[in-house]
Amino acid sequence: MHRERLQRLSTGMEHQKIAAMAFNSGPSLTYLTGLHFHLMERPVVLLVTPGKQAVLILPELEQGKLDQAACGLTAMTYPENPDNWSTVFRQALDGLKLGKGRIGVEPRQFRLLEYNYLFSANDNVSITDGSNLIASLRSVKDHGEIEAMKQAVTIAQEALKATLPLARIGMSEKDLANELVIQLLRQGSDPALPFSPIVSAGPNAAKPHAKPSERKLSVGDLLIIDWGASCRNYVSDLTRTFAVGEVEPEYHRIHNTAQMANRAGREAGKPGVACKMIDHAARVVIESAGYGDQFTHRTGHGIGMECHEDPYIRGDNEEILEAGMAYTVEPGIYLGGRNGVRIEDTVVVTAAGAQSLSDLPRELVTIC
Amino acid sequence: MHRERLQRLSTGMEHQKIAAMAFNSGPSLTYLTGLHFHLMERPVVLLVTPGKQAVLILPELEQGKLDQAACGLTAMTYPENPDNWSTVFRQALDGLKLGKGRIGVEPRQFRLLEYNYLFSANDNVSITDGSNLIASLRSVKDHGEIEAMKQAVTIAQEALKATLPLARIGMSEKDLANELVIQLLRQGSDPALPFSPIVSAGPNAAKPHAKPSERKLSVGDLLIIDWGASCRNYVSDLTRTFAVGEVEPEYHRIHNTAQMANRAGREAGKPGVACKMIDHAARVVIESAGYGDQFTHRTGHGIGMECHEDPYIRGDNEEILEAGMAYTVEPGIYLGGRNGVRIEDTVVVTAAGAQSLSDLPRELVTIC
Repeated sequence: MHRERLQRLSTGMEHQKIAAMAFNSGPSLTYLTGLHFHLMERPVVLLVTPGKQAVLILPELEQGKLDQAACGLTAMTYPENPDNWSTVFRQALDGLKLGKGRIGVEPRQFRLLEYNYLFSANDNVSITDGSNLIASLRSVKDHGEIEAMKQAVTIAQEALKATLPLARIGMSEKDLANELVIQLLRQGSDPALPFSPIVSAGPNAAKPHAKPSERKLSVGDLLIIDWGASCRNYVSDLTRTFAVGEVEPEYHRIHNTAQMANRAGREAGKPGVACKMIDHAARVVIESAGYGDQFTHRTGHGIGMECHEDPYIRGDNEEILEAGMAYTVEPGIYLGGRNGVRIEDTVVVTAAGAQSLSDLPRELVTIC
Repeated sequence: MHRERLQRLSTGMEHQKIAAMAFNSGPSLTYLTGLHFHLMERPVVLLVTPGKQAVLILPELEQGKLDQAACGLTAMTYPENPDNWSTVFRQALDGLKLGKGRIGVEPRQFRLLEYNYLFSANDNVSITDGSNLIASLRSVKDHGEIEAMKQAVTIAQEALKATLPLARIGMSEKDLANELVIQLLRQGSDPALPFSPIVSAGPNAAKPHAKPSERKLSVGDLLIIDWGASCRNYVSDLTRTFAVGEVEPEYHRIHNTAQMANRAGREAGKPGVACKMIDHAARVVIESAGYGDQFTHRTGHGIGMECHEDPYIRGDNEEILEAGMAYTVEPGIYLGGRNGVRIEDTVVVTAAGAQSLSDLPRELVTIC
């Protein structure tokens, strides 16, 4: 599997006349090699060059992981003293004899740290954005990847079901978030969650990326829970919004609107459709209800090994959906200083349309 | 507090003739502003310029967080469509009128993504490594920071105490790691742990950075547990090694050696001592016992908002310890393919010496 992925990447590189791709610790490196390294102060870099064996530069103390590599790799290790690192990185790059060839990187992942070790001493090098090359591989999921994502969705849903009965008026957002994390682990999520759950209520629910606070759940709150699980390197990402006790009529209205927008977004997906059409389908529902200005973000994002990856579901994205692509549909309405709502599902494109991997009820459920 | 930190950073910049510092989402940005952003596809950058108000470039949908900023900030926001981002970043940089001044970044944190948005269109800019400037602030902790770290140590220790009784022969490393994470959260850790616990036994314990696997605990294993908690943006990092049932006499020997090395390392720390002396003190104990080649990593690393930060406890690091610096002491011995041991404490330098924040017994305890 990893050999084939490296081969397909190499084919793409040849088409785009990219001499080598350089990846640091992160999901693409794991996707291509099956190996996992934390992004830390000790740089790890994979160099992929068509027609040659891939080269992995890593700390000596990580070399025990190499026996898990199912693909052929030439490993080059460096010792603890950073004074020796530049030499090892330069030898690795020189050994590939790239001449003046362009080297592709992922700017969203690649740090100046790796850049400096690899390229700073080399005037010949020209760096280019190779994100699309690897994204075009990673964004179309195979059966095994979708199965892992389904399991990540199941774990997330079961965890929420186990958490909701514990919610109480007067409980803090943070305590509820902690309980949810505990249930995610109990249900079998990998400990490295895709993100710390967002549990935000009342005025905090009006901030799409709020961090759970000490604020206590109060009657009249809308409660947004945005959470996900990790399973075999793949993740899920869901959101549901609940009513804490009785809430204002307008909150029912915005919830109903978000629910219709979520449905419209899910139903718009199928092979051949542009990403922007998904965004449009969801947004028009919210605009028609008069809340267009309160839907302050894109409708969704691709999902797989990363919680946010290609394809992005934005109104300006002309990218065409293919079977096997996975993304979220997550329209929201945020009434600043008051309350907010968001309903999010993880979907995968099939020949027949977009299938939601998540199926928790989307109606406004009152808790407490 | 944040105003004062920004002021001290500015003073350091003036001494080093750095016109501005640019920080992306990460601990230094949080340290300086009190604001927290995930490192994602939407870049967030803080620009600090002596004598001017700091500038924060961020997505519109994050601007709700700005009311938590206790320091003065000029916010510049961009909408969802990435086509507009370059303009906002360029306006922010141009507004600072830096001329040909040098701009400092942290290469370990700063990505090509932020680099490209800020600097690619500007030929005048010269980028420099400003890591030391911010590290010199962050590495000396104040009372509040040390209190948060103490709490992170307490949470970690209590979590391990609650987890150990659950360990059983035949239990997988992964299941034990999950239980430990659950107990960390129950004891009050923030959900974003400093790292996923390492639980590795038998041959896996011979790999310092092993990921918990499906391998089951077996009699004769050494079991390494390396874990930490998060509390108010600060973290702890500890390791203890246990015997699963009866283990070979050599394993008692290496454990005893690591324990003496840990003690020697802890006792070597005080103001005025170079970091390399801590490494030396621990390493000489292991070398004397004949296991020098099996101690394959540095003795420790600074710790605070990040699990790994300055000062690094390496044999080549001449940096001088000051009161308020915090770091780990974690000698290990790894018998490839067989078993391994590591004993790690989080310590803080005081006028009287290095005080260990952690005090769990360090002797070889047999579990199961």
